[in-house]
Amino acid sequence: QEKVENKAPLVNESLKKFLNTKDGRLVASLVAEFLQFFNLDFTLAVFQPETSTFQGLEGRENLARDLGIIEAEGTVGGPLLLEVIRRCQQKEKGPATG
Amino acid sequence: QEKVENKAPLVNESLKKFLNTKDGRLVASLVAEFLQFFNLDFTLAVFQPETSTFQGLEGRENLARDLGIIEAEGTVGGPLLLEVIRRCQQKEKGPATG
Repeated sequence: QEKVENKAPLVNESLKKFLNTKDGRLVASLVAEFLQFFNLDFTLAVFQPETSTFQGLEGRENLARDLGIIEAEGTVGGPLLLEVIRRCQQKEKGPATG
Repeated sequence: QEKVENKAPLVNESLKKFLNTKDGRLVASLVAEFLQFFNLDFTLAVFQPETSTFQGLEGRENLARDLGIIEAEGTVGGPLLLEVIRRCQQKEKGPATG
């Protein structure tokens, strides 16, 4: 008999649970948006089946709204993740006043 | 003669410039870390050549350090992007005092 190799299961339980949370879905959507932004079509073509997200995740408009990001000149030139990172790092520096 | 179809060029100029910036590299590394965290091996196997990041990007340890994230019980159960999103959203709520 064949020994079952330690291959990735057809159902990724850990990811499935993750995608069923609000923040998890947000994160996965931001990853997909990054791939779309840079036209990483081949990566996306594998990402969708591997994550079972054929129906697609949240689009950029919904993501920006959920994250409170208002699209402007400074944001449209990059993936939303770039804006998220910028804000995250601003926070690290602390407030300018008091 | 064949008409040149509008295929993705072999060199992704936009992504290349992006990866040459500190924040861009950070973002791409967070995406790769997400793929690794959930064992999305097939996606990674296409992501690396499509983004020309065969040498790998920043690993989780370096990413956490660059983002000022201290790994603890609450962070290790998810991709770093989850912690980034949580912090980003906390910021949106505004400070508890004043």
